[in-house]
Amino acid sequence: MRILILGAAAGGGFPQWNCACSTCAAFWRGEAGVTARTQSSIAVTADGEHWAVFNASPDLREQIIANPAMHPRPERGLRDSPIASVILTNGDLDHVAGLLSLREKHPLGLYMTGEIANVLDANPVFSALDPAFVRRERIALDTAFDPVPGVTVRLFAVPGKVPLYMEGETVETQLIGEQTVGAEITAGGKRAMYIPGCAAVPDDLNARINGADLLMFDGTLWTDDEMQRERVGQKTGARMGHMSVSGSGGTMATFAETTIARRVLVHLNNTNPLLLPTSAERAEVGAAGWEVAYDGMEISI
Amino acid sequence: MRILILGAAAGGGFPQWNCACSTCAAFWRGEAGVTARTQSSIAVTADGEHWAVFNASPDLREQIIANPAMHPRPERGLRDSPIASVILTNGDLDHVAGLLSLREKHPLGLYMTGEIANVLDANPVFSALDPAFVRRERIALDTAFDPVPGVTVRLFAVPGKVPLYMEGETVETQLIGEQTVGAEITAGGKRAMYIPGCAAVPDDLNARINGADLLMFDGTLWTDDEMQRERVGQKTGARMGHMSVSGSGGTMATFAETTIARRVLVHLNNTNPLLLPTSAERAEVGAAGWEVAYDGMEISI
Repeated sequence: MRILILGAAAGGGFPQWNCACSTCAAFWRGEAGVTARTQSSIAVTADGEHWAVFNASPDLREQIIANPAMHPRPERGLRDSPIASVILTNGDLDHVAGLLSLREKHPLGLYMTGEIANVLDANPVFSALDPAFVRRERIALDTAFDPVPGVTVRLFAVPGKVPLYMEGETVETQLIGEQTVGAEITAGGKRAMYIPGCAAVPDDLNARINGADLLMFDGTLWTDDEMQRERVGQKTGARMGHMSVSGSGGTMATFAETTIARRVLVHLNNTNPLLLPTSAERAEVGAAGWEVAYDGMEISI
Repeated sequence: MRILILGAAAGGGFPQWNCACSTCAAFWRGEAGVTARTQSSIAVTADGEHWAVFNASPDLREQIIANPAMHPRPERGLRDSPIASVILTNGDLDHVAGLLSLREKHPLGLYMTGEIANVLDANPVFSALDPAFVRRERIALDTAFDPVPGVTVRLFAVPGKVPLYMEGETVETQLIGEQTVGAEITAGGKRAMYIPGCAAVPDDLNARINGADLLMFDGTLWTDDEMQRERVGQKTGARMGHMSVSGSGGTMATFAETTIARRVLVHLNNTNPLLLPTSAERAEVGAAGWEVAYDGMEISI
C-alpha cells in the first residue's frame, strides 16, 4: 500500500489567509524551513494506477497539480485521472469543498456515511457532480468496501461533532455516530488507520488501532487552549471536536502503550507549533515516535 | 486604480485536473512557456490598502498566498486581510466556491444581485460565512455602490445563463437579468469594465463599453466548437453562455470599432489555444490589440 499525503493541514490550511498568529507570521515573513501545508487529504493505492482520495480538500486542484502521481495520463485518453474514488470522513468544509473541483464528467465512486450524504444532498451546489458519473455510495459503519482494486476500507465511528456550518443552538462535541468517522484501510496484508478528526479515544477505539502498521491521527492542536493563547480565537480544541497532541489526556499519552508500527500526525491547525521544524514541541513528538505529516509525504507499508 | 489578475482561467482552471486536450497536455509534459492559470478572479484597489475581489474562485486560498498584496499585515493585528469586499458577477462554481475559503470570522462586504444571493441562500454550506461578519448585500442592477474606499461599482446585465448546477430541463443561454452581470468599476476618473462571462454583445452593451480605459472580457473560447474539436466535450460555447474570441461574430470583431484604451482577455478555458504563448491565435489577438491575462498580471489605469 502506498499513501500520499496531499494536504497535511487542518481547515484553513497553513498559512491561514487572514492570520498572523506566531506560526503563520513565521511563514509570511519567509522564515527558513517553514513550509506551507494545504488542507487535509490523503491518497491511497495498491496497484499504483487507481487511487482512492480520502477527503476532498478545497485545495484539491492545487494538490493534483503538485503531485505527479495525480496527473492525468495522456496515453489513456483525453479524459483521465488516477483518482478513481473519494471517501469522506466527515462533512467539514476542509473535507468536502474539494468535491467541487472534481466535476467535468469524470466517473468516480464517492463513499460516505448516510449522514454525510445527507449534508451533500442538502446543498444543490454539489449537484455539480453529475450523478450520471459520480455514484454517491452510502456506506454503513463497520462494513467493508473496496474503493479501488486491492484496497479494502471500513468506516467506523469516532467521537466528534457535526460540521460547523450545520451546528445548531447546542452542540454535542463527543457525538458518536455517522458524523465523524475513521477509516481502516487494508491492502496486501497491511493495515493503516486514518483518523483526521477525533475528540477522544475510548478504550475500544484504542484497541481497534492496536497492532496497526500505520496510524495517521488528528494532530490539529498542540494544546486545548492554543487558539486562545495565540489570541486568534475563543474556541477550545474540545469545542471544535479535536483532542490535543500534548498533555496527560492527549494523543501522545493515549497511544503510548499501543502497538503501532508508524505514527503520523495529520490535520495540523495553523496555530500548532509542530509546524515550526525547530520548535521544542516538534522535538518532543519526534522523541515520542511521532512524525509530522507534510504535503507530498509518501508512505509505503 | 490598480487591478491584479488573481486567476485568468475559466472554470476548472488550466490545466484541468482530468484533461489531456492539446493545451493541457502541453502543460503536463512541461512545455516551455506554458504556465498554469488559476480560476477566474481579479482584485481592485484605489488606495492600495483595501481591495475588492471580483469573483471568489475555488483557487482563492492559493491566489492569496501567491500574491503578496493579498497577505495579512501582521502590524495590523492577529487577524487581518487586505480583502475588504467580494463582488460576484454570476453564481458559477468558478466564481463562488472560493467564498468557502473566506471564513474565519473576517469582516467582509459581499455584493451580488438578488438572484445570485438566492443561489447562496439555497446552499447551507455557505453559512460557513458567519452573517455576523459577512454582510450579504443585494445590489440592484445599474446602482452605484462603493465596495472599498475610492472605488465605485455598478453591476449591469449581460446575456448569459444560470449556473450549470442550477440548470433545469431547458436552458435559456442568452438570458438578460440578474444571473450574469458585468461590473463597471470607476476610480480616480478612470473606468474599467469587467465582464468575465458574456454570451453576446447587444448594441447597448457595446455603447456602454465605448470609451473605457480598460476592458477585461470573456476570453473563454477561441471558437464556438472548440470543445468538440478537442474531443473533450459536446457543448458549444453558445450552449455554455460564452461568445468566442475569433470569427465574424466574435469578441475581436465585435469591439473592433469600439474605443477602448486597453483590452484584456480573461476567463480562458483550458482548451483555448491562446494559452500557448507561441500559437498563431495568440499572435492574432496581439495584432488586434488584445492582451491575454495571466495570474499575477498587474494593471494600473
